[in-house]
Amino acid sequence: MAVHSSDIALAHSLADAAGTVIRPYFRRPAGLELKADQSPVTRADREAEAAMRRLIEAERSGDGIHGEEYGVKPGVTGRQWVLDPIDGTRSFASGRAIFGTLIALVEDGWPVLGIIDQPVQRERWVGVMGRPTTFNGVPCRTRTCAALDGAIVATTSPHLFDDQDVPHFMALVTAASGGRPRQGPVYGGDCYNYGLVASGHLDIVCESGLKLHDFAALVPVVEGAGGRMCDWNGDPLTADSEGHVLAIGDPARAEEVLEALRTLPHAH
Amino acid sequence: MAVHSSDIALAHSLADAAGTVIRPYFRRPAGLELKADQSPVTRADREAEAAMRRLIEAERSGDGIHGEEYGVKPGVTGRQWVLDPIDGTRSFASGRAIFGTLIALVEDGWPVLGIIDQPVQRERWVGVMGRPTTFNGVPCRTRTCAALDGAIVATTSPHLFDDQDVPHFMALVTAASGGRPRQGPVYGGDCYNYGLVASGHLDIVCESGLKLHDFAALVPVVEGAGGRMCDWNGDPLTADSEGHVLAIGDPARAEEVLEALRTLPHAH
Repeated sequence: MAVHSSDIALAHSLADAAGTVIRPYFRRPAGLELKADQSPVTRADREAEAAMRRLIEAERSGDGIHGEEYGVKPGVTGRQWVLDPIDGTRSFASGRAIFGTLIALVEDGWPVLGIIDQPVQRERWVGVMGRPTTFNGVPCRTRTCAALDGAIVATTSPHLFDDQDVPHFMALVTAASGGRPRQGPVYGGDCYNYGLVASGHLDIVCESGLKLHDFAALVPVVEGAGGRMCDWNGDPLTADSEGHVLAIGDPARAEEVLEALRTLPHAH
Repeated sequence: MAVHSSDIALAHSLADAAGTVIRPYFRRPAGLELKADQSPVTRADREAEAAMRRLIEAERSGDGIHGEEYGVKPGVTGRQWVLDPIDGTRSFASGRAIFGTLIALVEDGWPVLGIIDQPVQRERWVGVMGRPTTFNGVPCRTRTCAALDGAIVATTSPHLFDDQDVPHFMALVTAASGGRPRQGPVYGGDCYNYGLVASGHLDIVCESGLKLHDFAALVPVVEGAGGRMCDWNGDPLTADSEGHVLAIGDPARAEEVLEALRTLPHAH
């Protein structure tokens, strides 16, 4: 497996193309020049993915494509471009510029390149296996987390957990908040939170129900910044993972995080 | 009660001063040149409020001041400047530019001027009783919400509700989501969500536990944009309100929102 500089250049071109499509739809009044059944986010999502697919088909005709909107195009190279044009559609639709475009290159099931791009704030995290992750071109690092008690935990929404996930997640939140559970996690943020882990502003993101297009790009970004990406069992994330996703900024805390997730809180 | 153009100019100056203090602390590594017991957010919070208080004391020595960090300075004019230098400290500390500086002028207990300022994205909502709310200098309006079913509801964190608030809030979320409760509300955002209601990107914000410095500035912003601000009983928000806060972009939905909040969901 190897990522070539032309792959990185193509990934940047994809993010640029998606951003050009997406920006004019951000905070555009619903319904303005749109058909009744299409929201601005739907239009932006589809048009951005179509723009990215055209570029991939022109430059990497043998590679597979796995997009959130237009599905899977099989390839012949063992390489697959995994695309989520707008991760965080509810933030996009609400006018909050903390959504992101996700672009990953997956080789034989392993994410080897990832981009998290915020096109409105013009922020871009780029992770490549074996290289330092960059934020807007400058290398970034996760931060040290001296103890799990005190770690800042983020998750997009409690409604995204299955019923059986909730007590495990809350056990992690309780372990991180040192008996002050009303402090609670940081909510909202989708992929953007994983970029913030890579840049050392958040310690942990814990989510479930993520699909390949939601998490593939996050893996090289967080790991190239010194963090650890895994599922709730501590196993690496691959194309076959089931979407229980953990980002841990300081790998020294990984075992404690996994242990907390295994713990069930006392019943009331 | 009257708001003079010099009051509006002063409020802009306060927001400018706070932003100048806050921006350098945003995404600053924790501990860098800071005492061990002070986080960047604590420093930014205190220094921004101190800067605003100096300006008020210089220009309105008879007005009262009510600040989140430095408490109450009594006045003699019946006018009080209510300040929250960083509303959304957890977003600030996590590197998410969706926190805000809140500045309100309260006359005889009634909020008559409000500013929500996002200093990193340089976004500013200004509301003045009897005038149209502006966003970065341009008038903005809440949007029409044809039915409560389908309205987008936001709240910062479910952990901020008291136990007795939760079922009422969830009844509202259920009414808005048309039987798709897993859709859930939009989480995170603090004061920024109220600005988004004023600009027509969100329909409803529902929160509890807010203090005067959290909600005073929001009232003129949302109402001057055509929305309604009230407590969970539908009563107007004054300096004596207890912090159950509703922002409703389309006042035509207000009775349905209040009715939904009064409803308790069926027990499991």
